[in-house]
Amino acid sequence: MNYLHLLQNRFACKEFNKEKVSTAKIHEILQAGVLSPSSLGLEPWTFYVLQSPEKIEKLKQFCNSKKQFETCAFAVILASKNNFEPQGQTVQKALKRREDFDKVYELYSPYLKRLESKNAHEYGALQCYIAATNMVNCAHTLGVDSCIIGGYDEESINKEFLPKDEFCALVLTFGYKASGQPKHKKMRFSFNEKVKFI
Amino acid sequence: MNYLHLLQNRFACKEFNKEKVSTAKIHEILQAGVLSPSSLGLEPWTFYVLQSPEKIEKLKQFCNSKKQFETCAFAVILASKNNFEPQGQTVQKALKRREDFDKVYELYSPYLKRLESKNAHEYGALQCYIAATNMVNCAHTLGVDSCIIGGYDEESINKEFLPKDEFCALVLTFGYKASGQPKHKKMRFSFNEKVKFI
Repeated sequence: MNYLHLLQNRFACKEFNKEKVSTAKIHEILQAGVLSPSSLGLEPWTFYVLQSPEKIEKLKQFCNSKKQFETCAFAVILASKNNFEPQGQTVQKALKRREDFDKVYELYSPYLKRLESKNAHEYGALQCYIAATNMVNCAHTLGVDSCIIGGYDEESINKEFLPKDEFCALVLTFGYKASGQPKHKKMRFSFNEKVKFI
Repeated sequence: MNYLHLLQNRFACKEFNKEKVSTAKIHEILQAGVLSPSSLGLEPWTFYVLQSPEKIEKLKQFCNSKKQFETCAFAVILASKNNFEPQGQTVQKALKRREDFDKVYELYSPYLKRLESKNAHEYGALQCYIAATNMVNCAHTLGVDSCIIGGYDEESINKEFLPKDEFCALVLTFGYKASGQPKHKKMRFSFNEKVKFI
């Protein structure tokens, strides 16, 4: 597996060709999210998959990058729980799976206390970015193109699509690229600009 | 490339065997970070690589997960810029690489305004999580094990290792696993619990 080759060739698809993606591939892409690691093993995410033109049209209203929604095969809202109280359902449900629950709960409690106070949104979003990275990479290995959509009206998406205890951390669009893409050569700062051996 | 196979087999290594990792592999792992995508293409990260026992020992003081630092081959601090003012150096340097700078700058300005106000820490950390995901995955494809370290004293790491305009978003440790790992079967919520077709 040449991982750098994957990263060199995967790109942010600005326009898809409206072709459908098979159910098997959609499941495989979502499974890459499901298998992703998360801090403290909380897996705070739910992945909402939109395939109908009506739902995708509704999501488009709250997002920029309109063309992606007009042409994609499906879109995914990566939602996170918004509450990580140590005694709350999200934390308890995740940690209770562990045989060594009491030990783990004690070990994790300082982090859980920090999460409870102010960092719930950031914590939840961070975990969703791990899952998103794996989903778009997995898609690329299946020949499916993608675009990560960061520009959207979070409150409107939350209200329209999500239960009250979740928020939208990121939106992904998937499909097959329209011809002529990628339009630009991949642009990255150089290794020496970004890596420091200290 | 079987991406799900990668995710099934990569695990959070709790103890390494102290063996060194070759320079070529270290570079390849870091290159996976360098090639990672980022929102607005800002690439707000710098990757600080620690290989000497003294530096790693110093970093260990500010982190939990002590055993990983005592046994790893190298550690990486993923730092992000902490300021994304539209007229500031980070934004300007990234966007000025674009041939269509004026158009892009206008297009991005609503997002940049939001970043400027309150979300700089979250935005920067999110991008670093994309890079981190790619680095640990790339390592796995090279036979190198890793552990993502989220439990640390951010302020102390910032002060000890980073310039004033950066903060520590995440720490990674790499090496070869000590025998007997992974100790636990991978635990994830099921597909049906985490994926909703709406």
